[in-house]
Amino acid sequence: MTTNSYFDAFRERFHIPIGTIYLDGNSLGVLPKATAARVADTVEREWGNDLIRSWNSADWINTPTRVGDKYARLMGANAGEVAACDTTSINVFKAILTALELQKNTKRNTNTPRNVLISDIDNFPTDLYIAQGLKALLAERNLDLRFVKREQMSETIDAAGDRLALVMLTEVDYRTGERYDMKRVTAHVQSKGALMLWDLAHSLCAFPVALNDCNVDLAVGCGYKYVNGGPGAPAFIFVAKRHLDRLDAMNSPAPISGWFAHEAPFAFQPEFKTIRGIKRFSVGTPPILQMAALETALEMWLTADLNAVREQSLRLTDDFIRRVEWHCRDYPLLTLATPREHERRGSQVSFRHPEGYAIMQALIARNVIGDFRAPDILRFGFTPLYLSEADVVNAAQHLAEILATREWDQPEFKMKHAVT
Amino acid sequence: MTTNSYFDAFRERFHIPIGTIYLDGNSLGVLPKATAARVADTVEREWGNDLIRSWNSADWINTPTRVGDKYARLMGANAGEVAACDTTSINVFKAILTALELQKNTKRNTNTPRNVLISDIDNFPTDLYIAQGLKALLAERNLDLRFVKREQMSETIDAAGDRLALVMLTEVDYRTGERYDMKRVTAHVQSKGALMLWDLAHSLCAFPVALNDCNVDLAVGCGYKYVNGGPGAPAFIFVAKRHLDRLDAMNSPAPISGWFAHEAPFAFQPEFKTIRGIKRFSVGTPPILQMAALETALEMWLTADLNAVREQSLRLTDDFIRRVEWHCRDYPLLTLATPREHERRGSQVSFRHPEGYAIMQALIARNVIGDFRAPDILRFGFTPLYLSEADVVNAAQHLAEILATREWDQPEFKMKHAVT
Repeated sequence: MTTNSYFDAFRERFHIPIGTIYLDGNSLGVLPKATAARVADTVEREWGNDLIRSWNSADWINTPTRVGDKYARLMGANAGEVAACDTTSINVFKAILTALELQKNTKRNTNTPRNVLISDIDNFPTDLYIAQGLKALLAERNLDLRFVKREQMSETIDAAGDRLALVMLTEVDYRTGERYDMKRVTAHVQSKGALMLWDLAHSLCAFPVALNDCNVDLAVGCGYKYVNGGPGAPAFIFVAKRHLDRLDAMNSPAPISGWFAHEAPFAFQPEFKTIRGIKRFSVGTPPILQMAALETALEMWLTADLNAVREQSLRLTDDFIRRVEWHCRDYPLLTLATPREHERRGSQVSFRHPEGYAIMQALIARNVIGDFRAPDILRFGFTPLYLSEADVVNAAQHLAEILATREWDQPEFKMKHAVT
Repeated sequence: MTTNSYFDAFRERFHIPIGTIYLDGNSLGVLPKATAARVADTVEREWGNDLIRSWNSADWINTPTRVGDKYARLMGANAGEVAACDTTSINVFKAILTALELQKNTKRNTNTPRNVLISDIDNFPTDLYIAQGLKALLAERNLDLRFVKREQMSETIDAAGDRLALVMLTEVDYRTGERYDMKRVTAHVQSKGALMLWDLAHSLCAFPVALNDCNVDLAVGCGYKYVNGGPGAPAFIFVAKRHLDRLDAMNSPAPISGWFAHEAPFAFQPEFKTIRGIKRFSVGTPPILQMAALETALEMWLTADLNAVREQSLRLTDDFIRRVEWHCRDYPLLTLATPREHERRGSQVSFRHPEGYAIMQALIARNVIGDFRAPDILRFGFTPLYLSEADVVNAAQHLAEILATREWDQPEFKMKHAVT
């Protein structure tokens, strides 16, 4: 059982700008206080003083797996199943290639190959883009991409039958915050002989993730949202041990055969030979400064109780929904986009409103920072480690005042510019 | 005309550990003094205080092209021809795919496709590995990889004739420091209707590079060696404007179709549409902390005179060769691996010795830091901005003493471990 003092103590470990209510930790997590010193030490001592020796003395050489193992503990995976590397987009690229490789020799009832890849049309676009790019790149494999609405997911999986190669979903919808049932969907997909790839962008460090308990095949995700690993933090890729073993047994090549995926990168041999295990997913020289920031955040998370975080997240999101709906009851254009049922919700709350963009700008002008997603979604991320119950009360109050006063109805709030 | 005071002033802008003679800037460049403050500001103000707003207010969103444009000025390229992104390995992957795309519709005398890719068997291995990986991935394209010794390069290009698609070389050999003639080789390759891809890992900021003057098609390289951009700095990819225009005209897809290569990444549309120009080579979210360190280094380089750097590099390397050969004249097992002719030399000097590994360890124990490359190469990088003439005198003296005293002949200098 956790108490408020548990979270009050954690809040002290983050740098929160004074006067800001930050509800955008699902886009860019805040700065842990320990990070600045760790990055400075990496720059000044490891790079500045120790220079090239740090590849050994500071263990730079093993960062993809050392940091990967810390990632692993936060997602219910084992050491050796996760690599920290590259970006989510590039890891999706590797994961799809790996799924196709694993399906290469799968037995089917007919002679036609397993070539169907299913995803949610509302999945985060980069996942869909990478699949489209691979379809074009590997034209002869004749990938059959089926991007459908969530409501059609189950029947689409059934319809593909034994032509299904891979289903790729983001567990929590980045717009609505709606959550898939990881265990159920994974089992359904696997019942067709297909593989399941989860994108954990809005899951990791938002609530407990149990990849191996759900028998997940592949997963990817980023380090800069709920993880608090910093802007552009190295992403991760998870591949279940059983598949790593098969890839090794099949002598499968690394999906992108850079020198960090070589069995002996510092032997500088001209012939590529894939290293065994999760290191096959490394490619090039790891970004050491970003890794230092990311590792600091992961080490902090390893001291947190993710079950307590989940409980508190549900309390905060329930409270925010209740307060907004009560205060804004006279503004029926504002409607809840996030499921009310706990098991169908991630750690964000989204409301729709036709003037959502301008309303969000008005909130940001009051230092209540959420974000907007086209066409009409106001998105609020809830991060119990640094968000207080008072923040929730005040955020709901600000939103109500902005609607009541039509404060959003000003030209400067309607000019759109790039936001993430 | 430059004077010693020119370089003395530059040396003050770097953090050089006291007592160290650093001859490994061709593996990891030293820390510019301005970098620590810039990285700290990025962590504490841009991330810590301004949070998500920094995507606009600190222009995070444009880092791949903003930093790319600064890279461009150091390699004789124009704004809009270079993107700062990912690792060298991943950029080689994109560059080869782009070459194949550009060759797709090339007219030939026969019906067989242009499918020959030539490289130097002594090229840095990751470039060779990526080509091998792409051959396996794109099996139906039947890539014909021909990795040959430098001495066979010219005849191999001639023999491939109009089957030649691409030649991929690193301008300066990472082991010997021998330099290709960029202009001549590029013209030879293009006379066959093929494309030329240069890896500038040991060229950029080592001497003036003039890609457009040499009519180069494609180039890649890293930011952590002579550039001083920090460990794991974002790499770059150059594609000549004429090819970018053709890719746009052909509606060619991005080589790795992540959301940063989309024409409107923040519109979150499910269908991938490649953005025009160099941005098609971006993939995922840029690593903002690494970009800050890299940009600081590039800005420093933009105030330097690369012709003066080259003159000084030749003075220092000439002097080092002369002094080592004189002091070590009684040790004929030590032989020069680097060409004596200026135009065939990069900015490093390599000597061969059967006990090269142990000798280098003995040098490092004396704080003279170079590195070793199998099987027998002692490698010394020369970086005039922070290396003095006294350093050269002293380094040669240390090497001579180690040979004279057989100081290298100790067990602890013979145990090999990973070095880069």
